[in-house]
Amino acid sequence: MIDLKDIQAAQKRIHGVATRTPLIAYPNLQSAGCLWLKPESLQPIGAFKLRGAYNKIASLSDEEKSRGVIAFSSGNHAQGVAYAARVLGIEATIVMPATAPQIKKVKTRALGASVVELADGSEEDWRVAAEELALQRGFVMVPPFEDERVIAGAGTVGLEIFEDQPQADVVFVPVGGGGLLSGTAAALKLCGAGAKIIGVEPEVANDAQRSFRRGEIVEIPLAEARRTSADGMRATRLGDLTFAHIGEFADDIITVSEAQIAQAMRQTILDARLVVEPSGAVAVAAALFHNDAYSSSGTSVAVVSGGNVDATLLAEIILGQ
Amino acid sequence: MIDLKDIQAAQKRIHGVATRTPLIAYPNLQSAGCLWLKPESLQPIGAFKLRGAYNKIASLSDEEKSRGVIAFSSGNHAQGVAYAARVLGIEATIVMPATAPQIKKVKTRALGASVVELADGSEEDWRVAAEELALQRGFVMVPPFEDERVIAGAGTVGLEIFEDQPQADVVFVPVGGGGLLSGTAAALKLCGAGAKIIGVEPEVANDAQRSFRRGEIVEIPLAEARRTSADGMRATRLGDLTFAHIGEFADDIITVSEAQIAQAMRQTILDARLVVEPSGAVAVAAALFHNDAYSSSGTSVAVVSGGNVDATLLAEIILGQ
Repeated sequence: MIDLKDIQAAQKRIHGVATRTPLIAYPNLQSAGCLWLKPESLQPIGAFKLRGAYNKIASLSDEEKSRGVIAFSSGNHAQGVAYAARVLGIEATIVMPATAPQIKKVKTRALGASVVELADGSEEDWRVAAEELALQRGFVMVPPFEDERVIAGAGTVGLEIFEDQPQADVVFVPVGGGGLLSGTAAALKLCGAGAKIIGVEPEVANDAQRSFRRGEIVEIPLAEARRTSADGMRATRLGDLTFAHIGEFADDIITVSEAQIAQAMRQTILDARLVVEPSGAVAVAAALFHNDAYSSSGTSVAVVSGGNVDATLLAEIILGQ
Repeated sequence: MIDLKDIQAAQKRIHGVATRTPLIAYPNLQSAGCLWLKPESLQPIGAFKLRGAYNKIASLSDEEKSRGVIAFSSGNHAQGVAYAARVLGIEATIVMPATAPQIKKVKTRALGASVVELADGSEEDWRVAAEELALQRGFVMVPPFEDERVIAGAGTVGLEIFEDQPQADVVFVPVGGGGLLSGTAAALKLCGAGAKIIGVEPEVANDAQRSFRRGEIVEIPLAEARRTSADGMRATRLGDLTFAHIGEFADDIITVSEAQIAQAMRQTILDARLVVEPSGAVAVAAALFHNDAYSSSGTSVAVVSGGNVDATLLAEIILGQ
């Protein structure tokens, strides 16, 4: 388990590399309370993943750095690792499914990383392939969430929320593999924040909610995880580490519908002027549509985890199609 | 003329009301230098105007506050004044042209302001109408730019840029009535920044450029000012105060085409994940398409002045239509 010192050390490490995002007031809210957004979409790679990737890679020994790093990801973690490695002058290799969006491969290569394409498969298949390659070539693995340095890096989101809104009543955090929720919840609770920390998941892929409530890790089939539009939240199970942190520090996990995710995307774009991807709108959906159960008149914070979205989908969402 | 103390006092006054916006790295830039965006689109009203309006209204005497404030605006200044007045518990009246977008009237009323609709006309017509109403009803006028407190409030943008990137080589700032450029340029120069401060205007409505280069205020016809898509930059002339500040503190004023504005909007939305209005993209257009003349390998900053844009236009821009 990570402790507050790990997260504080991460905060020092990422300073000047990751953007210190402000809280943005969500305007024109009808309810009595107020809602603040934490726009991790404004990181240089458009997602919070840079925090954990940089904290992990910057913590490596010189010998490890000289070997280069490897990661498996079809999405934002790929760019987080590629960007962090470039800043540190380290070689990076990213294992991606051949079916990943072309734009994500292009962006990852543009950051100087080598991209190894794999046939389609589950996150587990990519992990195994990346581990084999790491063994063969001596690369150091940078896991997307199941790693204490990665979790501590993500936890800097929680430290910043506490600095800006120490009196918040509830903080909504999206849950995919659980790294962001683990770190954010740990940071807030270890700082002594009184806020309830609520994980949010798409209802069609609610493995984390089931795991949290049952007290043991529940895995869902890949086909089930893929039913959500929130492509950053298609992990089929929590990791052992993230499950432990969430069990210790989070207060609950709730779910939102696909229609609520689309509506929250549209409102975040038009009302808060932030470009947001489906996964990035999941916590906003909870704040907009489920807030009453947690904070009827208080201060809420929702973490907007990322903003990497195709132009066509973005235009469709804006037009309400 | 304002001095550094006026801007520093404004910074203290607006703290906790206006958002302290970060600089956002513009990603994937092809050129050798780097570009930072100052996203004033993330203010609670979606534009920098809150800074000046709040600084002005919070500086009023109790007697003045009790009389209420009035402003004339079809755009972001209306919401800035309405929001600031609401925070301070003061009555606000906004004079708007009947032809203003419905959404802007609705948003201004939603902030608790009384909206007085006028037949269409020039900014000068609205000013006269607002001044008559102010005389009749005892309201205190909050001008959109021609006021030292308003300019000092806008200048806090410059102080924050200096805090975050003191070594910037060039700062691009949009020019409408000139309040933002006046304040930002004054702040940076008075802090001792070495950056060149470049005002940016649409080329089809370049009254500020002509004024700056001729050394006297040049007024353009309203029909000419209206040719630009940048609806926040349709002022037909600088004010005497803003002309004096720009002459003292800015290094040049350059122009961008309508096609460049549209392209900069699209790139800001898709690459930097910020929803931006046409006026808000004008300085970004200069940084993307004219930067070489000013800073071929250095650090540039572009102020994204606002993000209030209709859903339909936003979708069209994203799809490149």
